[in-house]
Amino acid sequence: MQPLRKRFGIEADEEAKTYTTSIGFDWRLWPYDIQGSIAHAKMLGKQGIISEKEAELIVTGLTAIRDEIEHGTFELKAELEDIHMNIEARLTEKIGPIGQKLHTARSRNDQVATDMRLFLKDVIEETIGRLKHYQRALLDLAQANKEVIIPGYTHLQPAQPVLLAQHLLAYFEMAQRDIRRFQDCLERADELPLGSGALAGVPYNIDREFLAKELGFSRIAPNPMDAVSDRDFIIEYQAAASITMMHLSRLAEEIVLWSSAEFSFVEVDDAFATSSSIMPQKKNPDVAELARGKTGRVYGHLLGLLTAMKGLPLAYNRDMQEDKEGLFDTVDTLLPTLDVFAGLVRTLRVNAQRARAAAEGGYILATDLADYLVKKGIPFRQAHGIVARLVAYAIEQGKSFKELELKEYQEFSPHFEEDVRSITVEASVQARNPQVERALERARRLVEGEGG
Amino acid sequence: MQPLRKRFGIEADEEAKTYTTSIGFDWRLWPYDIQGSIAHAKMLGKQGIISEKEAELIVTGLTAIRDEIEHGTFELKAELEDIHMNIEARLTEKIGPIGQKLHTARSRNDQVATDMRLFLKDVIEETIGRLKHYQRALLDLAQANKEVIIPGYTHLQPAQPVLLAQHLLAYFEMAQRDIRRFQDCLERADELPLGSGALAGVPYNIDREFLAKELGFSRIAPNPMDAVSDRDFIIEYQAAASITMMHLSRLAEEIVLWSSAEFSFVEVDDAFATSSSIMPQKKNPDVAELARGKTGRVYGHLLGLLTAMKGLPLAYNRDMQEDKEGLFDTVDTLLPTLDVFAGLVRTLRVNAQRARAAAEGGYILATDLADYLVKKGIPFRQAHGIVARLVAYAIEQGKSFKELELKEYQEFSPHFEEDVRSITVEASVQARNPQVERALERARRLVEGEGG
Amino acid sequence: MQPLRKRFGIEADEEAKTYTTSIGFDWRLWPYDIQGSIAHAKMLGKQGIISEKEAELIVTGLTAIRDEIEHGTFELKAELEDIHMNIEARLTEKIGPIGQKLHTARSRNDQVATDMRLFLKDVIEETIGRLKHYQRALLDLAQANKEVIIPGYTHLQPAQPVLLAQHLLAYFEMAQRDIRRFQDCLERADELPLGSGALAGVPYNIDREFLAKELGFSRIAPNPMDAVSDRDFIIEYQAAASITMMHLSRLAEEIVLWSSAEFSFVEVDDAFATSSSIMPQKKNPDVAELARGKTGRVYGHLLGLLTAMKGLPLAYNRDMQEDKEGLFDTVDTLLPTLDVFAGLVRTLRVNAQRARAAAEGGYILATDLADYLVKKGIPFRQAHGIVARLVAYAIEQGKSFKELELKEYQEFSPHFEEDVRSITVEASVQARNPQVERALERARRLVEGEGG
Amino acid sequence: MQPLRKRFGIEADEEAKTYTTSIGFDWRLWPYDIQGSIAHAKMLGKQGIISEKEAELIVTGLTAIRDEIEHGTFELKAELEDIHMNIEARLTEKIGPIGQKLHTARSRNDQVATDMRLFLKDVIEETIGRLKHYQRALLDLAQANKEVIIPGYTHLQPAQPVLLAQHLLAYFEMAQRDIRRFQDCLERADELPLGSGALAGVPYNIDREFLAKELGFSRIAPNPMDAVSDRDFIIEYQAAASITMMHLSRLAEEIVLWSSAEFSFVEVDDAFATSSSIMPQKKNPDVAELARGKTGRVYGHLLGLLTAMKGLPLAYNRDMQEDKEGLFDTVDTLLPTLDVFAGLVRTLRVNAQRARAAAEGGYILATDLADYLVKKGIPFRQAHGIVARLVAYAIEQGKSFKELELKEYQEFSPHFEEDVRSITVEASVQARNPQVERALERARRLVEGEGG
Repeated sequence: MQPLRKRFGIEADEEAKTYTTSIGFDWRLWPYDIQGSIAHAKMLGKQGIISEKEAELIVTGLTAIRDEIEHGTFELKAELEDIHMNIEARLTEKIGPIGQKLHTARSRNDQVATDMRLFLKDVIEETIGRLKHYQRALLDLAQANKEVIIPGYTHLQPAQPVLLAQHLLAYFEMAQRDIRRFQDCLERADELPLGSGALAGVPYNIDREFLAKELGFSRIAPNPMDAVSDRDFIIEYQAAASITMMHLSRLAEEIVLWSSAEFSFVEVDDAFATSSSIMPQKKNPDVAELARGKTGRVYGHLLGLLTAMKGLPLAYNRDMQEDKEGLFDTVDTLLPTLDVFAGLVRTLRVNAQRARAAAEGGYILATDLADYLVKKGIPFRQAHGIVARLVAYAIEQGKSFKELELKEYQEFSPHFEEDVRSITVEASVQARNPQVERALERARRLVEGEGG
Repeated sequence: MQPLRKRFGIEADEEAKTYTTSIGFDWRLWPYDIQGSIAHAKMLGKQGIISEKEAELIVTGLTAIRDEIEHGTFELKAELEDIHMNIEARLTEKIGPIGQKLHTARSRNDQVATDMRLFLKDVIEETIGRLKHYQRALLDLAQANKEVIIPGYTHLQPAQPVLLAQHLLAYFEMAQRDIRRFQDCLERADELPLGSGALAGVPYNIDREFLAKELGFSRIAPNPMDAVSDRDFIIEYQAAASITMMHLSRLAEEIVLWSSAEFSFVEVDDAFATSSSIMPQKKNPDVAELARGKTGRVYGHLLGLLTAMKGLPLAYNRDMQEDKEGLFDTVDTLLPTLDVFAGLVRTLRVNAQRARAAAEGGYILATDLADYLVKKGIPFRQAHGIVARLVAYAIEQGKSFKELELKEYQEFSPHFEEDVRSITVEASVQARNPQVERALERARRLVEGEGG
Repeated sequence: MQPLRKRFGIEADEEAKTYTTSIGFDWRLWPYDIQGSIAHAKMLGKQGIISEKEAELIVTGLTAIRDEIEHGTFELKAELEDIHMNIEARLTEKIGPIGQKLHTARSRNDQVATDMRLFLKDVIEETIGRLKHYQRALLDLAQANKEVIIPGYTHLQPAQPVLLAQHLLAYFEMAQRDIRRFQDCLERADELPLGSGALAGVPYNIDREFLAKELGFSRIAPNPMDAVSDRDFIIEYQAAASITMMHLSRLAEEIVLWSSAEFSFVEVDDAFATSSSIMPQKKNPDVAELARGKTGRVYGHLLGLLTAMKGLPLAYNRDMQEDKEGLFDTVDTLLPTLDVFAGLVRTLRVNAQRARAAAEGGYILATDLADYLVKKGIPFRQAHGIVARLVAYAIEQGKSFKELELKEYQEFSPHFEEDVRSITVEASVQARNPQVERALERARRLVEGEGG
Repeated sequence: MQPLRKRFGIEADEEAKTYTTSIGFDWRLWPYDIQGSIAHAKMLGKQGIISEKEAELIVTGLTAIRDEIEHGTFELKAELEDIHMNIEARLTEKIGPIGQKLHTARSRNDQVATDMRLFLKDVIEETIGRLKHYQRALLDLAQANKEVIIPGYTHLQPAQPVLLAQHLLAYFEMAQRDIRRFQDCLERADELPLGSGALAGVPYNIDREFLAKELGFSRIAPNPMDAVSDRDFIIEYQAAASITMMHLSRLAEEIVLWSSAEFSFVEVDDAFATSSSIMPQKKNPDVAELARGKTGRVYGHLLGLLTAMKGLPLAYNRDMQEDKEGLFDTVDTLLPTLDVFAGLVRTLRVNAQRARAAAEGGYILATDLADYLVKKGIPFRQAHGIVARLVAYAIEQGKSFKELELKEYQEFSPHFEEDVRSITVEASVQARNPQVERALERARRLVEGEGG
């Protein structure tokens, strides 16, 4: 737990240096910084820009620093401002002046861009993994409740009965698109900036193919000015994350609604609810509410970076340092949200009876009645008119469709016959969407087939 | 030109109906609505849901309506609220009650979703075409000025000399990524919602493969609830457009800077500048400024739709009607901006001498001097230290690098030799980025090879 | 109704001129432009910068133009680009070369800034008027249902019974803060920019006090560079409008919820709902949904302008032309939304019985039971523990609080006595918030007292 | 310095509890929480809701806890989730079961709302203080350079000469409006929510006037449902902060421009610049760039909270917990930015000669020539036409205005006479804006008079 800081957390030290220092957040790039530097040192050695021996020494030094960090014995120094200088300074401390050769044929600008891309590539894989985890939870819940019928809503008014499974599969589809978007983003992030120097390339015989291979990039950035000043890949992640959060906010809204006393279609598991200290029966769907609220925060980070990048001349400007904190917070918001949603969904208890009763209510089968008439040859708009009058009559009589007698039906159209009785909630669901089983299987294949 | 409306443009008629009517903006969906309805009618006929004859009659009627609209004889009626009802009502007027059968096995929800996807697919192709057009302008300007050297900036301070062509190619690369993003967006937009009904599918033996083929969709939306409530494809377009506008805002900023009296690297063509009525020599880069400003508007529409969609339960809610105006305005902003930028760039006059002089200024070759020492075996950080002291000395002496004598160099390092004289702006550019010719060719192939 | 334009509404004419022309939207500034010019002409005459006679002629000409516009005989010319040039050109057409003197000691920059402030001042008064109108509707509904008890929710779970009137008064308070914010905005908008020239003031003996008085401004902008490049007043309006829309979106959400089949606390009047063509009993709260959705649009305009203004050097830049369309759309969204909400609220039918039944449900009086114990001396946290166990027991027994016998209560605490029976929904409401009548009166005074 | 955390900083513990815990950020509310609780305990004692003795004991306990926190001996426990439970739990630990009485007649909802308002009131005072500090720096720089003339720009093209002091005073005016906005925000934040309970008030004889007085609030929140679910005051702070950051981003842009090699109007002090390790003469205006970039982040937080609040039903929902982190980050961004700007501005070195030379350049006095003719009776638009032709001629001849002979002038208008020579940069500035001295004095009085 963090120690309590002084009021407002604003340091007395108001110097510009504190203002520009980034070590407070960029420390988390350390694995990527070391990985990038090791590849760079190897390349310098291989190309004879430094000697093979020097390269080896540097690699050994960096490997030792990685160990120190992993074992918690590495001490970050704020006065060195960023993670990159912290690591380079420690390297020279450990291996002497040879350490000063590491930065040959490289600049902070291409180094940071490389670190960020390595970071993001890892994050995207992690994101996709968790989306699949969440998809599986949706499928499991759908499978376990595959007969459950609920009202399907438009305008939050019951419109037609649907299967809960179909409803959950809608969220599966959204997550599937999310995965595709993150894959597209990965495709664009997968380009090596190293070798671009400060902005204009470097005057050394470097081997960028080697660097790309070492670091797992599938392409090399063709233009150095673009390579050091491009932050599209981060914005794109933020945009994809915003859409994902929007999807989750919709499910969150439904979970809040469905677990209200008035709906009572589901019960949130104790692990994902808080209860009031006084009303043990009252379960607050806090996790869903909080996720809904956090949607705003992720949108905010997207807009923050878009705004920061607006109107910046080439190439690097310090404004671009602002790419990091928003991204980190988006990642730290999205990944846990996906995890808690997987748990929340998987443990949801469905009150099938209550949902089914709601799906029976009102005149939810009116559309089916109209379709019945259409199939007997009545034009669609006319059929609708007939049923509208029938519904008005039924309301007046205080009767449900079931309670109406056939001759009452027939007063509105002679095309109503005995088989009008076969229009039930089950029949409606069956007629409209006959293949939920297959849809579930297809979804299962999708989520498993892609190596999740 | 629009007639002047009353103050504030707010209608006296404050009824809810005016509030919810969408015909004021959704009229532009008409070509897609007719296209979708024709395909739907054909399918209904083919499947025997209506007779072949009825289908033909409907198709003929719709084709006639298309003619009316194209010839400006179709009258939109505000009281019919949206373009869809306007067209359907006119159809029934023209062909009688058979027209009432068109809406069989369809709902407003899947109809609108289909129209929007057809519209967006067209828009994306148009967008990509204009991006290529703009890319060509960049390439032409780069080609025509391929020897021109300008200062490369970081922090808006001259850092290293670069070729103008390399600088322009950075914008080419951005546009290339933009194209890819729109292609990805197209890929996801390319899915047929028709057949999803209001939210739960339709109880008719429809043929969605046929519909997809007729309308040019390569996939069928698998889940009806998702299909009618998905607006991802629009948000994705807005996000891609926001990034494109951000890129253009950066070039806009540079054009404003470069055409300032202080920089004077370029002169904007009269067609793309306004001049003050009083200062004919003063050319204001209005187009660039306005494009930079319009970036905010496109970001705003992205946020607007993300916000509108946040927390909406399934399936259709009227909030979703808000997907249209923002998208239309984004399209109406982005496409003309790309066009004027193509013209603006293509007609830019470059002041090569002025740019070159600026690239000579200061001690812009300091990094090259350091790299010179590194190549003679001095560790990178040390080499930097030596050059820093040399620069400080030169400033004190009021001399440029050229004006320093060799022995003055040698006071800072014995490694400086006669060949230090070969470090020039040209040599620097050559050493760092030797292959601009090839880069231009590659870019040309990219823009042409993709069928632009 | 607008004629159908060509596909995408993009003009074939792709010239920069079309791109920068603003007459398509700034026409609505005409009343302010004429008002400002009349004041300016009078001032020029009064100060002898032009002759009194010339001034009179100009004023007469401008007055005639106002008539033309009001009678619809004024023809806007797109080639004159903006409303200001349209009016000035027409003036010279009407009164000859004297018209060319109108722009003496003035620039487009201070002219436009003046027009926008005049416009906004009118808009703010209009906005406040409509907020009061909406407040009155809230009060009328509260008054008419002042005994109605509904469940008060936290986390959308029933927490404590409340009066519907108290609930509605919460929205009254929000609107009251909105009014204050618009008043603050008005206070800052109320400053005359005219006289600032293009950016540096004007070299004439102008009388700005006179101008301010003529135009109804209470202060004069002290700094000319600020005066022509300040758009804070517009952003501030957008921010206040965003908060107002946020408030309305919350009420919209509640109206959607409350009119759902599951809640059924209210019924939206037919005038503010749409019904499905097929389900006449189904009333969709479209107005509320649409208002909720439009919240995003208003947020978007706020962001758009903030983004456009970011990083602009002084003084005027063409980016600032982007201040208009977003503002106009915000005004055209907010004012009608307030109007339809006034109507929607005023005509809402409350189902008091249903709401009351919901307020009885569950163990909503648990907190009251705990407070009962606290008043008998049991520490708050302990009292809560006792009631929690009691509720758990009651759930197990399937009994409501009413159905429990006194001795069952006493098994959990000896402090429960016969008077525990007096804890009812009414008593709870009464004890917590005894003075709804006074709150209503205070609110009524507020809304009337301020001259609404 | 923080220890390095595991990759991505995502905890292995993915439980919902971690997700909802707020102690990681709400710890900084501790001074306000203790202050609020002390006032509440005193009130409970005074009103006899608890005994005077109990109240004293609680106050003593809370005071001791304050000491513990200030001395760094208080240990925060993550499992207690928030700062409020941490403090209450410690109180009971210290003073026994009496501690359990503190929460009588209070709920977490009104407690948190009170803490946030107390926090914000402090923050606003701090913000205003720093704005004044920054204003003083602007004034000092203006005063020290009050004769310095620079080009005044529109469209980044030189338009008319201006005094640097006038330019700086424009930023003073912006800051002055910022102060007013924060004062308005303070006015609305200054309302006591305590006593509202969870949402419906509390059934105790509490004294809210006493609470308000103790805590320094000037009003009492009239409606309990509104009081616990209102976050307007936070949004309003975020909106005001966004505008302030926008203003600073404009000055930042100008400092970046002015310190470019091409402009060279100012030099940023070493303390506020970073230099490249290799080019000691190159000073990067990092602080200005970073501030410009951070503008996006503050906008993002504004939109984040607006989005989170959209569409939330009354009263408290867990989404609202998202009000804190964005606000804290805005405060932690804005306050240091104001501080570094004060330093940056105060230490700016102005290159008066260079600026003056730029202000002489081109035909910047063209407008003055036109005004000269207008004063001789030529209508404004005609005068402009004459000067335009004169300028065109001068450009052709390669002469400046000074270099033209009188008879050359007279070829364009006979009204040009010998006194045309008196049109100089100084005269222009003097004629347009004669009273910079008074403007500086007025500004000084404003900033000092308000108790800064």
